[in-house]
Amino acid sequence: MLFDFDNLVGYAAAVLTTVAFVPQALKSWQTRDLSGVSLPMYSLFTAGVAMWFVYGVMLGSWPIIIANAITIVLASVVLTLKLMHR
Amino acid sequence: MLFDFDNLVGYAAAVLTTVAFVPQALKSWQTRDLSGVSLPMYSLFTAGVAMWFVYGVMLGSWPIIIANAITIVLASVVLTLKLMHR
Repeated sequence: MLFDFDNLVGYAAAVLTTVAFVPQALKSWQTRDLSGVSLPMYSLFTAGVAMWFVYGVMLGSWPIIIANAITIVLASVVLTLKLMHR
Repeated sequence: MLFDFDNLVGYAAAVLTTVAFVPQALKSWQTRDLSGVSLPMYSLFTAGVAMWFVYGVMLGSWPIIIANAITIVLASVVLTLKLMHR
């Protein structure tokens, strides 16, 4: 089933770890304060999320594709701002 | 197969998005500079990673369990430091 209990836990987890980057991207954009944000973290993380996206495409898994497509955009905003304001 | 190409991409993705939090946790620990780090981000993210851990347990998936157990520890370090130094 698409919406059994296991999948609901997985969807909730995916929504939380994706939506989490909205306040970080907004804060970084508005304040341009990136001093405490780690450049290696966002470099590795953005590369990793891009690989999750590829993995989702290979599996044909839309939840993995959609969640990681959104996270790539949000993490890239933070990474770009960090590269501009270090 | 445990180590077909799809799974290798998935493992590489999991390693990258997990290891990414090592430099952030180290930087936050050493500098105690959390000013640019978003509290709502680490609150939502840590909760989400905890749910991924539960999802891994429900599926009996060791890669999901191990990757998220490590990430819970690293994200909790950043979250705790943010709560102490805002």
